[in-house]
Amino acid sequence: MNPITEKLNVDKLITLALQEDISSEDVTTNAVMPEYKKGTAQLICKEDGVIAGLDVFRRVFTLLDPDTIIKTYVQDGDTVKNKMLLAELTGDIRVLLSGERTALNYLQRMSGIATYTKRVADLLKGSGTKLLDTRKTTPNMRIFEKYAVKVGGGQNHRYNLSDGVLIKDNHIGAAGSIQKAVEMAREYAPFVRKIEVEVESLEMVKEALSAGADIIMLDNMTLDEMKQAVAMTRGKAKTECSGNVTRENIQNIIDIGVDYVSSGALTHSAPILDVSLKNLHAVE
Amino acid sequence: MNPITEKLNVDKLITLALQEDISSEDVTTNAVMPEYKKGTAQLICKEDGVIAGLDVFRRVFTLLDPDTIIKTYVQDGDTVKNKMLLAELTGDIRVLLSGERTALNYLQRMSGIATYTKRVADLLKGSGTKLLDTRKTTPNMRIFEKYAVKVGGGQNHRYNLSDGVLIKDNHIGAAGSIQKAVEMAREYAPFVRKIEVEVESLEMVKEALSAGADIIMLDNMTLDEMKQAVAMTRGKAKTECSGNVTRENIQNIIDIGVDYVSSGALTHSAPILDVSLKNLHAVE
Amino acid sequence: MNPITEKLNVDKLITLALQEDISSEDVTTNAVMPEYKKGTAQLICKEDGVIAGLDVFRRVFTLLDPDTIIKTYVQDGDTVKNKMLLAELTGDIRVLLSGERTALNYLQRMSGIATYTKRVADLLKGSGTKLLDTRKTTPNMRIFEKYAVKVGGGQNHRYNLSDGVLIKDNHIGAAGSIQKAVEMAREYAPFVRKIEVEVESLEMVKEALSAGADIIMLDNMTLDEMKQAVAMTRGKAKTECSGNVTRENIQNIIDIGVDYVSSGALTHSAPILDVSLKNLHAVE
Amino acid sequence: MNPITEKLNVDKLITLALQEDISSEDVTTNAVMPEYKKGTAQLICKEDGVIAGLDVFRRVFTLLDPDTIIKTYVQDGDTVKNKMLLAELTGDIRVLLSGERTALNYLQRMSGIATYTKRVADLLKGSGTKLLDTRKTTPNMRIFEKYAVKVGGGQNHRYNLSDGVLIKDNHIGAAGSIQKAVEMAREYAPFVRKIEVEVESLEMVKEALSAGADIIMLDNMTLDEMKQAVAMTRGKAKTECSGNVTRENIQNIIDIGVDYVSSGALTHSAPILDVSLKNLHAVE
Amino acid sequence: MNPITEKLNVDKLITLALQEDISSEDVTTNAVMPEYKKGTAQLICKEDGVIAGLDVFRRVFTLLDPDTIIKTYVQDGDTVKNKMLLAELTGDIRVLLSGERTALNYLQRMSGIATYTKRVADLLKGSGTKLLDTRKTTPNMRIFEKYAVKVGGGQNHRYNLSDGVLIKDNHIGAAGSIQKAVEMAREYAPFVRKIEVEVESLEMVKEALSAGADIIMLDNMTLDEMKQAVAMTRGKAKTECSGNVTRENIQNIIDIGVDYVSSGALTHSAPILDVSLKNLHAVE
Amino acid sequence: MNPITEKLNVDKLITLALQEDISSEDVTTNAVMPEYKKGTAQLICKEDGVIAGLDVFRRVFTLLDPDTIIKTYVQDGDTVKNKMLLAELTGDIRVLLSGERTALNYLQRMSGIATYTKRVADLLKGSGTKLLDTRKTTPNMRIFEKYAVKVGGGQNHRYNLSDGVLIKDNHIGAAGSIQKAVEMAREYAPFVRKIEVEVESLEMVKEALSAGADIIMLDNMTLDEMKQAVAMTRGKAKTECSGNVTRENIQNIIDIGVDYVSSGALTHSAPILDVSLKNLHAVE
Repeated sequence: MNPITEKLNVDKLITLALQEDISSEDVTTNAVMPEYKKGTAQLICKEDGVIAGLDVFRRVFTLLDPDTIIKTYVQDGDTVKNKMLLAELTGDIRVLLSGERTALNYLQRMSGIATYTKRVADLLKGSGTKLLDTRKTTPNMRIFEKYAVKVGGGQNHRYNLSDGVLIKDNHIGAAGSIQKAVEMAREYAPFVRKIEVEVESLEMVKEALSAGADIIMLDNMTLDEMKQAVAMTRGKAKTECSGNVTRENIQNIIDIGVDYVSSGALTHSAPILDVSLKNLHAVE
Repeated sequence: MNPITEKLNVDKLITLALQEDISSEDVTTNAVMPEYKKGTAQLICKEDGVIAGLDVFRRVFTLLDPDTIIKTYVQDGDTVKNKMLLAELTGDIRVLLSGERTALNYLQRMSGIATYTKRVADLLKGSGTKLLDTRKTTPNMRIFEKYAVKVGGGQNHRYNLSDGVLIKDNHIGAAGSIQKAVEMAREYAPFVRKIEVEVESLEMVKEALSAGADIIMLDNMTLDEMKQAVAMTRGKAKTECSGNVTRENIQNIIDIGVDYVSSGALTHSAPILDVSLKNLHAVE
Repeated sequence: MNPITEKLNVDKLITLALQEDISSEDVTTNAVMPEYKKGTAQLICKEDGVIAGLDVFRRVFTLLDPDTIIKTYVQDGDTVKNKMLLAELTGDIRVLLSGERTALNYLQRMSGIATYTKRVADLLKGSGTKLLDTRKTTPNMRIFEKYAVKVGGGQNHRYNLSDGVLIKDNHIGAAGSIQKAVEMAREYAPFVRKIEVEVESLEMVKEALSAGADIIMLDNMTLDEMKQAVAMTRGKAKTECSGNVTRENIQNIIDIGVDYVSSGALTHSAPILDVSLKNLHAVE
Repeated sequence: MNPITEKLNVDKLITLALQEDISSEDVTTNAVMPEYKKGTAQLICKEDGVIAGLDVFRRVFTLLDPDTIIKTYVQDGDTVKNKMLLAELTGDIRVLLSGERTALNYLQRMSGIATYTKRVADLLKGSGTKLLDTRKTTPNMRIFEKYAVKVGGGQNHRYNLSDGVLIKDNHIGAAGSIQKAVEMAREYAPFVRKIEVEVESLEMVKEALSAGADIIMLDNMTLDEMKQAVAMTRGKAKTECSGNVTRENIQNIIDIGVDYVSSGALTHSAPILDVSLKNLHAVE
Repeated sequence: MNPITEKLNVDKLITLALQEDISSEDVTTNAVMPEYKKGTAQLICKEDGVIAGLDVFRRVFTLLDPDTIIKTYVQDGDTVKNKMLLAELTGDIRVLLSGERTALNYLQRMSGIATYTKRVADLLKGSGTKLLDTRKTTPNMRIFEKYAVKVGGGQNHRYNLSDGVLIKDNHIGAAGSIQKAVEMAREYAPFVRKIEVEVESLEMVKEALSAGADIIMLDNMTLDEMKQAVAMTRGKAKTECSGNVTRENIQNIIDIGVDYVSSGALTHSAPILDVSLKNLHAVE
Repeated sequence: MNPITEKLNVDKLITLALQEDISSEDVTTNAVMPEYKKGTAQLICKEDGVIAGLDVFRRVFTLLDPDTIIKTYVQDGDTVKNKMLLAELTGDIRVLLSGERTALNYLQRMSGIATYTKRVADLLKGSGTKLLDTRKTTPNMRIFEKYAVKVGGGQNHRYNLSDGVLIKDNHIGAAGSIQKAVEMAREYAPFVRKIEVEVESLEMVKEALSAGADIIMLDNMTLDEMKQAVAMTRGKAKTECSGNVTRENIQNIIDIGVDYVSSGALTHSAPILDVSLKNLHAVE
């Protein structure tokens, strides 16, 4: 992760997470370890997968003590195997003990998302359809989860409501027509934004194209309609459909020929990847 | 959720999450809906499960506009079915549109955890063993996730490092012995804390009991050893073991006879429960 | 201004500004007015111009006391004249006194920007070139200043570094070529972003177009080169040039035929519009 | 700027301003520059003026990366000329790119104010009248703008409502009389505060003096009345009048003989001083 | 307390204090009282003294729930007696239980300071010497403690390092002389500040007066020297000495004839005034 | 103090306290000392007592400038004597001047509490009764004050409402009975919490014991009743009584034989220990 992103937007979230786990002090550690003692530990993989979030893992410890040393043997995006040694940590053993859980909670979740994304992206390999995430992320985890999707080989849809225009049926209703809604958005939104319109029929596809939409999102349409929509749109706008991508339905999605398929499951339902701190002990 | 908890510890997290999603403004909505317009929507269940987080769902909208009305037809802990109407929302349609995603992200995750916890807790029903969560929660989601575990029928282990004493091998090593570590903790920690000790052998169980530990956590022991540990401990301290609870291993856990089994999967790997806002539209 | 934007992103800035002016208490007012007293005041225009920021003006007072009533006689974007009555305020006279300066500081600056923008935008009226702002805003005032530009008839360029891609020569240098830089951006950035490339020669225009840039920013080019660039680009991408727009150079800019001209002066050098609170007095 | 002031009161504002410009990440830079690369750039003056804010400029970059080196060739208060080299920057090129706009936004505004203030202060040179700023500053910019006024040769009026007592007609009305208002302020406000009273007639001047006011602010009075007021006040209190100071009215102001003239234009309407980062490029 | 002061500078401190006491939730109350229940309680005085902080007491509860009603029978500054009923509270009994301790911690401490200050101020009654507080306040309690001093009949010295100039020997040493230090301060500090100089000899008193100091603080001088200093200063500046004021030394202080005597003990060593919430119970 | 506790929970409070004292800048110091100058000072004890808070004292200065060196000659818990040299400080003299008051305010208060606690704890020496603090701490000072109690030889009761269960009569009333209240708490609260019940009669002691309470708090009982309560409880639960511990009543408390006596006066009414910074001067 970029160090500027860390300073400005990640550190405060990690600090909040550490304060969530240490609201006054780590009583157990403070009770038995009143003084600095140098310690070491190993970060070990417990399942096969794709690792993501090593910088965040590192930052948890260096926020507590900048002198903590984390030597990594892999990097974000690498395929990792059960029992692999991922990193070695050296520093104040109190820091290793107090930071362990928060660091692992980030790393496991981010790696779980990268692993799951990789599996789905691989299904689409060779097709012209790219995999997108959504805004269905865990609250206060978006910057970490969208990063993990990219590590796993997916692409990011808009970051949030402020940096992307997606015109849905209520917006169309309020504006009066697709044409009017697109115009209003183009007038209002910063001019660098692409305009995406969600449509539910071939009629609406036509209107959206004639209004100059940059991206057409196909919603609630049959496979057949979607294929026609893609054909109508080609060369004029990009197309997107949403939904789970599974081994079962993969051929259908590829057949539609959409440019992008977006999947909320990447961020909201990926199980964690099990990694663990082992052999934590004091060294003289 | 208790309104004091909301005011002091939940509102700031929800506000952060809303700012994550709206870092400057909701450009689409602002472009086409410059004025207040009353709207309504329905919260519909998309899968069977246990609902949790309705107060958090409500709070997302009332933080944006205290006049939003959310009429709920179920309450936290209720079993819900696919297609059930869970709630109806009425208010400024811009608030419904801008708050929708954040509100659902909380509700889906919390309900996912409650649903998963309920399934596991049901496996233990009738046995003397109770289900516990862990500190393996999503960063900055602990207050929501631990609440969801309780809604699902689990119990909470310590909230964080500040409010529970759990003496692990490194603490024992630093103190010199279990006896010494327990003494130091009792001297140092607020006197209302129970003292839990993690042990890896029957020898350590004995030491922990003689040191006066209140809870013994059995780690890395065979089923047989655990059964002996439970027998030795009965009446003197509580026992806990950790690990996944599945249909396959459930009989083993019950046979051990531990007082508590703790499971990280409750919070780190439960898939979401699919719920969705439908029929969002303006009303005159 | 949208009330959601206010709650999430404006209130905290106004509150900071009020705390900047009242770091402990308003000593003068508290010394002589220990009790609530109802008061009233008039908001009067002191120069001709365009008003912008009435909601922000109102919010300063209602943050201090939600019961303050501000009755406005104009709305954002209206042309206002010297001596016009813009609004009447009624509430706790201590709130009117303590909030006056901060409320006027916002309103005067925002109206100054709207007034200046309007003058420039009018020069471009009838041409095919639209007026854009830049990121040359006053620190911690961007949300207010970009809003004022829109009120004055300008359009917004990207809001910040997170929501727009603008590839400059250093980025090109780092990537190796325009082609490569555009590809990397398209791979990395959320897919809803347009890609803008800054170019300094016709050669670079060609490269940018062939790389698929959505917007071409013409920098350091002669009028003639710019005209050629615009001709080459038409129908393939949008064009932008930057610089001050004055009565003197306006014909040149129109002749170039660019789609957009951006001007930092809109936000960094507009003088304020003088408005003032008058006849502030207690009422029984 | 004093490093303690920076730590306690400036850093948080600069950080907010950086987060305003980078709400998630600098997407362009991160897309094409995934790794650290050493870079350099020159800070060049684009107009004649007075420079102010070099420490703030530096702090923007060192907050992002403490290893950034900024070698300055001038210091705050120096007269600078078009094309002059003001400073050279060396560090992570991503830090130079991401911090550039925010750093310049501060420096340009502060230097604009110093330049404008210097021009006005020079008009008063040789007279007994000193130039003061006001509270008409840009919200959340007061600490920077008041500093720039001092750099330009002006003096600061009260910092805010908490650290100065200025009794206006409403305060007098609430207290019942000038005498009573001054007494209440002296009783209430910290005893180190001077008491300033705003008056609109010679009668009020007399009352204010007899009440023991330390400073008399002359408002809405003719030149002649002001001269009489100054004569009455000499030796007993300081006098202040407010208003723009221009080449045209300067002799009038000097003739009045007031101790201080305060001008809101110093902070609310000074155009920026154009400075720019040039030759930004990677070095090996 | 003024409601604007509360909103801007008190609420955030009270909220922090509540979060200190409720870092996740009030477990006891939440365990046994899942629902709203109306309750009432009485605020009873347990010792004689002076009450201060009733608005802060009230604010603790209304921050938790704006519907809480606190009916007060006394007001700040009133002399109160053991067993007196000070106020009655009605509201959600969970709010009364959860807010009780924090509300009392504020009220007891503020009333303790007012009581102690009153006793000391009474000793000075009839003399020309007024009682001042100092900056020796409890961290993050200054706004409450300085208020309590005023309620008890004392006056406030400067609020903090930003709003008062006090030149001590190190400042004099750095400047070169008293004369130079006063000049530098007058040049640098906002012009509404009085200049106070700390002196240790009659020689320094002379220098300070000739430099135009507004206040002379007498430090480390004998009674006799202080009397001479006061005589030299009369009519030219105010005088201040510091130290405890007790029944034993009171005549000495009055004899010196200083304008002000400042005492750190008012805020750092006053014992609390015992007040308590009684008869807390649910009502139907 | 543990460095992790400092980073996560102490630094923000110290920073707030410094900002309370320096809301814009230290005007006196900045006026006369525009540049870095190395300085030194001595921390001297002015009364006999127990020192506590040296790490907090140090942190105030190192937060302002990490290069400040504080060499301590004593450590927390040491008995100190009038005139003893406690520490020597070296660093930027502006940092020593600006941080002095805040650092001393913490150190004096913490040492005052440690000194007072030590005196009380010594009275209990040799008895089986241990000394506890309460939640009657100064708002936003709990982490410092509870630490000081431990330094003085006391033990900590629960830290706050979130980490301890204390069932009072209202909770019992709401639950229906002691039995029911204890059950609800055990079901609801994290399972590592001990359950304390406040009782007012021997009948209630019996109920609490049979409900399985871990700690019984004796309230409003005669000495005789308390002795019987202790006898009934021995071996089944711990006992606590509250109240001031003085030379006069100490024998009574010891005779009761309770395990713990808690005293609010430790934190709410201990006078400060006088320590002071001396010989602060510049060095070359």
